[in-house]
Amino acid sequence: MTKRKAPDIVVGRLPLYLRMLNQLIEEDRSTTNSQELGDRLGISAAQIRKDLSYFGGFGKYGAGYDVIYLRDQLRRILHLEKIWRVVLVGAGDLGHALANYHGFSKNGFEIVAVFDSDEQKVGTMVGGLLVQDVSRLEEVISENHVKIAIIAVPVSAAQAVADRLAAAGVSGILNYAPITLKVPPGVKVQYIDPVARLQHMAFYVGGELNKSSDPGE
Amino acid sequence: MTKRKAPDIVVGRLPLYLRMLNQLIEEDRSTTNSQELGDRLGISAAQIRKDLSYFGGFGKYGAGYDVIYLRDQLRRILHLEKIWRVVLVGAGDLGHALANYHGFSKNGFEIVAVFDSDEQKVGTMVGGLLVQDVSRLEEVISENHVKIAIIAVPVSAAQAVADRLAAAGVSGILNYAPITLKVPPGVKVQYIDPVARLQHMAFYVGGELNKSSDPGE
Repeated sequence: MTKRKAPDIVVGRLPLYLRMLNQLIEEDRSTTNSQELGDRLGISAAQIRKDLSYFGGFGKYGAGYDVIYLRDQLRRILHLEKIWRVVLVGAGDLGHALANYHGFSKNGFEIVAVFDSDEQKVGTMVGGLLVQDVSRLEEVISENHVKIAIIAVPVSAAQAVADRLAAAGVSGILNYAPITLKVPPGVKVQYIDPVARLQHMAFYVGGELNKSSDPGE
Repeated sequence: MTKRKAPDIVVGRLPLYLRMLNQLIEEDRSTTNSQELGDRLGISAAQIRKDLSYFGGFGKYGAGYDVIYLRDQLRRILHLEKIWRVVLVGAGDLGHALANYHGFSKNGFEIVAVFDSDEQKVGTMVGGLLVQDVSRLEEVISENHVKIAIIAVPVSAAQAVADRLAAAGVSGILNYAPITLKVPPGVKVQYIDPVARLQHMAFYVGGELNKSSDPGE
């Protein structure tokens, strides 16, 4: 049986399921079900069953899921069985926070090098790594077979960094600069933009405020 | 005519359109159209027209959009015409980076207070603000009529902070802790989880690697 191709929005939910399974494992739980996962994630049980069905059958009807088995399967599906080596470009405040964040290495991603173009920063230590001059970017990517990079540079520098990363063979970019990057086909970009998230929330929060101050309500 | 209610995914794209319009304004452009916006954002022109149609008619067929007019309309729709006062809970590495990030105040959000529970951090300056003891959280939220908060504390503390924020009247939370928060109805949460984004990318990047190393391809 040929599996249907999972839509991107479904793929994007798998890390949430994986995170919840890891949490259940920490709670010493051995089984769960779509109802519980759904309740804890704020997603419908039907949605979770449908999402997982793109990748195979992971539970018996009525018996639920084996937590460790499902966790391992999700790790396999997401290609997290090996550790991904990641380079970080930008050693400013954000770069510091990212380099010091233990969540990456605990969840399949090791930052192996940090770069900056500022000679004041080059040679300093960040998160246990020496900040290297960005001129060495291509060399380090090639030597370490790096496929994933994080951009934490100002907007004005982000596209040029993305161009260099793509040309050097990187095929996944996590971009913190608030700009839509142009990349060649085959290069995936994910964006982290807290301002966009706050603005998204303001739509609802502002709507509620206006409603509650409306004397007609 | 009653407007149709925009799906959440459409609301989530409005900040991207707003960001692109601001970029066009910096480039001294006065008009644009859905084709150009789509090309620059990697979204189809039809999608952009459909998204905007939920909120009214912003352009003439053939004439495109007036950049400043559309920017102002999006700001109105997203409730960004006033500055939102925001509190930040957590003054660790991430809290530092957030407090120092100028993108918030430039785009409608002013961090008015920073809190931490660590007495080593309380009383220090972060991003021009004095770090306050988290015991003062409710008082400061009430005094400043704060409706939006950012959580940048460890996972173990995040739910308790969210509970206190919701009880104090906050109705929008931007959560950096990698945990799904339980909040009362009416409180919106947006999540920032770089690990989930990297894992999402690994699905594709790993798939490509496996394909290219498959001798059958």
